[in-house]
Amino acid sequence: MNWFQKEISLKPRGRGFHLVTDEILGQIPEIKKIKTGLMHILIKHTSASITLNENCDPDVRSDMEKYFNRTVKENEPWYDHNSEGADDMPAHIKSTLIGSFLTIPITNGKLNLGTWQGIYLCEHRNHAGIRSVVVTFFGDESV
Amino acid sequence: MNWFQKEISLKPRGRGFHLVTDEILGQIPEIKKIKTGLMHILIKHTSASITLNENCDPDVRSDMEKYFNRTVKENEPWYDHNSEGADDMPAHIKSTLIGSFLTIPITNGKLNLGTWQGIYLCEHRNHAGIRSVVVTFFGDESV
Amino acid sequence: MNWFQKEISLKPRGRGFHLVTDEILGQIPEIKKIKTGLMHILIKHTSASITLNENCDPDVRSDMEKYFNRTVKENEPWYDHNSEGADDMPAHIKSTLIGSFLTIPITNGKLNLGTWQGIYLCEHRNHAGIRSVVVTFFGDESV
Repeated sequence: MNWFQKEISLKPRGRGFHLVTDEILGQIPEIKKIKTGLMHILIKHTSASITLNENCDPDVRSDMEKYFNRTVKENEPWYDHNSEGADDMPAHIKSTLIGSFLTIPITNGKLNLGTWQGIYLCEHRNHAGIRSVVVTFFGDESV
Repeated sequence: MNWFQKEISLKPRGRGFHLVTDEILGQIPEIKKIKTGLMHILIKHTSASITLNENCDPDVRSDMEKYFNRTVKENEPWYDHNSEGADDMPAHIKSTLIGSFLTIPITNGKLNLGTWQGIYLCEHRNHAGIRSVVVTFFGDESV
Repeated sequence: MNWFQKEISLKPRGRGFHLVTDEILGQIPEIKKIKTGLMHILIKHTSASITLNENCDPDVRSDMEKYFNRTVKENEPWYDHNSEGADDMPAHIKSTLIGSFLTIPITNGKLNLGTWQGIYLCEHRNHAGIRSVVVTFFGDESV
């Protein structure tokens, strides 16, 4: 049984949905040592989120951004939490709707995702900095 | 410490929310060997999702399907990702709203769910085939 | 490798979003024994949910409650599942939108959350009792 845990940074990105599978995997080469196991990712923020979705057509990512902006609007007259900017309370709601963590199976040293699945960083603030992510992976060692 | 990992298939179903607890458990009899542990399930698709919800009244499942169809509409004029059918972009959004994976505790060889909880396969396409799921379970061995 | 699993109770609360990080941690002092690992929490109900979000301003929690009440309305004419009260079918939908479980990294005997992150119990019923939660944590032992 092997355990790895690393806090990694994802570079700052504009508001929207971004494919970050390769940026994450590039920072955890030790995953190759796991034969059968799981990778867990937590984003340590409440105004950004992570999800799995389509890894090919960038229109899926921009349609996703449009959907969430229409569903969780800025400047609702009934928001009381307004002190951190018009994009902040919507960012908190999106974070709970989408989620702050993922767990993905590892098989023979690789993430066992579907052909069309990738990891999205969902950035809900207009001007965000680096996003911190804790990656934990564990399982049976490769022979 | 025991690890099991299996890719299993869920039979094709019509669009809607379906209770699949027994179909999954029937394919992983080895779960009985785990005294204290966790089961993780990932659906390897971006147009179907999985969740836990009420396992008794089928009206909950059909009301859920109606809710998500009203909240994530087909044929929105602002969708750019249209090439795979009117049900495709809504399916991607529903998949992120609902989620692609579950982790459930195992206690004495059984899923430790609430009395009223079951696993739903949420099929968002009108005409879908078999859905592939990776099931990973691990924990302390039963004596 | 250490495994702990405990079923704990969260005291009854009114409908709304409630910060429960300390109530959970107070019931699992054994977490200090884990150097590198994960904590998993499952809420064994289909009309309440759990999420991570902002741990400071209570307005975030009340705005969240307002958002979900506006998005998942009571008394929709198309609901068929009405026998358990006007708040019940909305509670099931919120439970799937928000989620029934969390997994959080443990580092040096503590939850490795962001500075502003806390665990919310999201109570969707008007008059709920105690909520049962299964907490499972596991990982490498502290030296």
